[in-house]
Amino acid sequence: QATHKIAVLPGDGIGPEITKVALQVLEAAGKSHGEQFEVKESLVGGAAIDATGQPLPEETLAACRASDAVLLAAIGGYKWDSLPSASRPEGGLLALRTGLNAFANLRPAVVLPQLADGSSLKREIVEGVDIMIVRELVGGIYFGQPRGFSTNDKGHKTGYNTMVYSEPEVERIAHVAFDAARKRRKRLCSVDKSNVLEVSQLWRQTVTRIGKEYPDIELTHMYVDNAAMQLLRNPKEFDTVVTGNLFGDILSDEASMLTGSLGMLPSASIPSEGPGIFEPVHGSAPDIAGQDLANPMAMVLSAAMMCRYGLSLPQVADDMEAAVTSALDQGFRTGDLMSDGMKQLSCSDMGQVLLKAE
Amino acid sequence: QATHKIAVLPGDGIGPEITKVALQVLEAAGKSHGEQFEVKESLVGGAAIDATGQPLPEETLAACRASDAVLLAAIGGYKWDSLPSASRPEGGLLALRTGLNAFANLRPAVVLPQLADGSSLKREIVEGVDIMIVRELVGGIYFGQPRGFSTNDKGHKTGYNTMVYSEPEVERIAHVAFDAARKRRKRLCSVDKSNVLEVSQLWRQTVTRIGKEYPDIELTHMYVDNAAMQLLRNPKEFDTVVTGNLFGDILSDEASMLTGSLGMLPSASIPSEGPGIFEPVHGSAPDIAGQDLANPMAMVLSAAMMCRYGLSLPQVADDMEAAVTSALDQGFRTGDLMSDGMKQLSCSDMGQVLLKAE
Ligand SMILES: CC(C)[C@H](C(=O)O)[C@@H](O)C(=O)O
Ligand SMILES: CC(C)[C@H](C(=O)O)[C@@H](O)C(=O)O
Repeated sequence: QATHKIAVLPGDGIGPEITKVALQVLEAAGKSHGEQFEVKESLVGGAAIDATGQPLPEETLAACRASDAVLLAAIGGYKWDSLPSASRPEGGLLALRTGLNAFANLRPAVVLPQLADGSSLKREIVEGVDIMIVRELVGGIYFGQPRGFSTNDKGHKTGYNTMVYSEPEVERIAHVAFDAARKRRKRLCSVDKSNVLEVSQLWRQTVTRIGKEYPDIELTHMYVDNAAMQLLRNPKEFDTVVTGNLFGDILSDEASMLTGSLGMLPSASIPSEGPGIFEPVHGSAPDIAGQDLANPMAMVLSAAMMCRYGLSLPQVADDMEAAVTSALDQGFRTGDLMSDGMKQLSCSDMGQVLLKAE
Repeated sequence: QATHKIAVLPGDGIGPEITKVALQVLEAAGKSHGEQFEVKESLVGGAAIDATGQPLPEETLAACRASDAVLLAAIGGYKWDSLPSASRPEGGLLALRTGLNAFANLRPAVVLPQLADGSSLKREIVEGVDIMIVRELVGGIYFGQPRGFSTNDKGHKTGYNTMVYSEPEVERIAHVAFDAARKRRKRLCSVDKSNVLEVSQLWRQTVTRIGKEYPDIELTHMYVDNAAMQLLRNPKEFDTVVTGNLFGDILSDEASMLTGSLGMLPSASIPSEGPGIFEPVHGSAPDIAGQDLANPMAMVLSAAMMCRYGLSLPQVADDMEAAVTSALDQGFRTGDLMSDGMKQLSCSDMGQVLLKAE
């Protein structure tokens, strides 16, 4: 029996509603295994900008650092879109990732049989898809120096960024990816653009070298443009994928659309030590905020990922995931997932179904 | 009546077979409009490496510069994959693009009703899709300086590249894109990552400023990760898209898979003045090379794009495109496009059908 300290960041839009449901489901699942959660809520994103002027107040980062895991809902909204980009809600997300050094972003794209018809791809293409994208999250072009604006030798204004990786940065994400592949179907595809970019050549060499330590894992390499195609042509060919920050941003969002149910997808962002960040892939959906219409399941599954990867409570995670499967099997859906013959529930009612299903 | 000088680069793999068909169809279509083509073949890619050690021999670049348009088939193959990346066949392609300053890459992704069932996406999602992606082709991270390998302040080996755009570079591609949108459905979506990258902020500001000169065009902006999603969720929402070199590489390949028929897609790469480069999107398919199995239609459509955009011969282009439509309507297919009830043809037999259809 233990108490786990969770820093909860409800954020903006539908964030608070889905957080409420996820915490109820988490507490109930924990209880049946003798686990307790000490929850401390803090401000992030637009809510934090409104209250403090900062998207990630120091207090919030301190609360996250003092926690065992961070559960984040969603940030951003029309209201803050006109702010200069450095002080927008997204800045809080980037600062949180680097502040916790959460370098490994795990983005599962699993097509649930109950929801496969919701995909824009044909059922036979996506049924059975189960991809884990491992994205490097605190390096690459997002943070590379130098960056900024300048005037070139012809006197023209330029904007520039640096895509850079060092060997240790690639090594640590490669280890995470090979370890993940080992727990899955033992195949890892590393995605880069090494036919054009030196940074990708270093990436490919380093991943290949680390791969020698994992002789049981089949390592392949693919160019990012080809990966964007193959994800559509034959997504089942992928098991685990590892790639840099920018390519991972693009490919994980593309892969999420294969599932046809963005409202079901969790993610984990994990450091070498200290608390990880667990959050749904979807946004803050300001258009439906406060109307009890949101789908809380990606948030519940994010809390489950938190139990599995952040708190080493696999049984609590199993129970929460089983509750989601059971609700779907019973035909319960939120508005985003509705189809003929299904029973439409509000966000809070879905919460009740999940609690009962545990 | 005129004679047009065409630099023809058959390249590697299936390149020579599809080139032969395209030139036959081009000559016949030209003839009926009193147009003649003076064809000069040169080496590029692996074929050039084998003969001269260089993927783009100086002679080839000179022949291209002296032409009215360059018709390129496909380059690369397993045989040259183990060469150091700088001296691989792809290097010839990049050198040709910069050598001709072909900064505007036009990549149509059109779903043909006859072939819509070949897409991995559902027919109702892709039927009617008609997207033109305008990709900046001689700037951005592909060519940005500084680039290379180095040792960082912690003594670790790094690889790095620079994503950089100047205002004039963005202005000229924006003009091409707005002009293209004007000839289409008058909507332009500019894709960037301006919530993270300064180079994208310069991109977005500049496209917005140029947009003021095109009040009849509806300009929108989208982040690249969202674009990768929306291309799957609702591809019909896109008309014309403009983006940088790397994002364009990824998104145009993703968009090409919507059509389900990579063997049908042409592209054009156009400079401010001088000859443009016209080539199919597909690769050199070394596995089927020399077996008369290839689909020559993307190459025929590339020659049609050459007539339309490079030689100002829209009627010749119309005839060639109509021949392709007619062959499909008659149920003729190459192996890559086969489905029940269709008649399978070899590459050369498809050439005969296209000639007859003109
Ligand atoms: C909001 C944005 C900065 C962020 C990113 O690009 O990393 C988002 O797209 C994501 O993938 O979490
Ligand atoms: C071969 C490669 C260098 C090239 C590119 O990345 O531009 C190709 O993918 C393309 O899109 O034409």
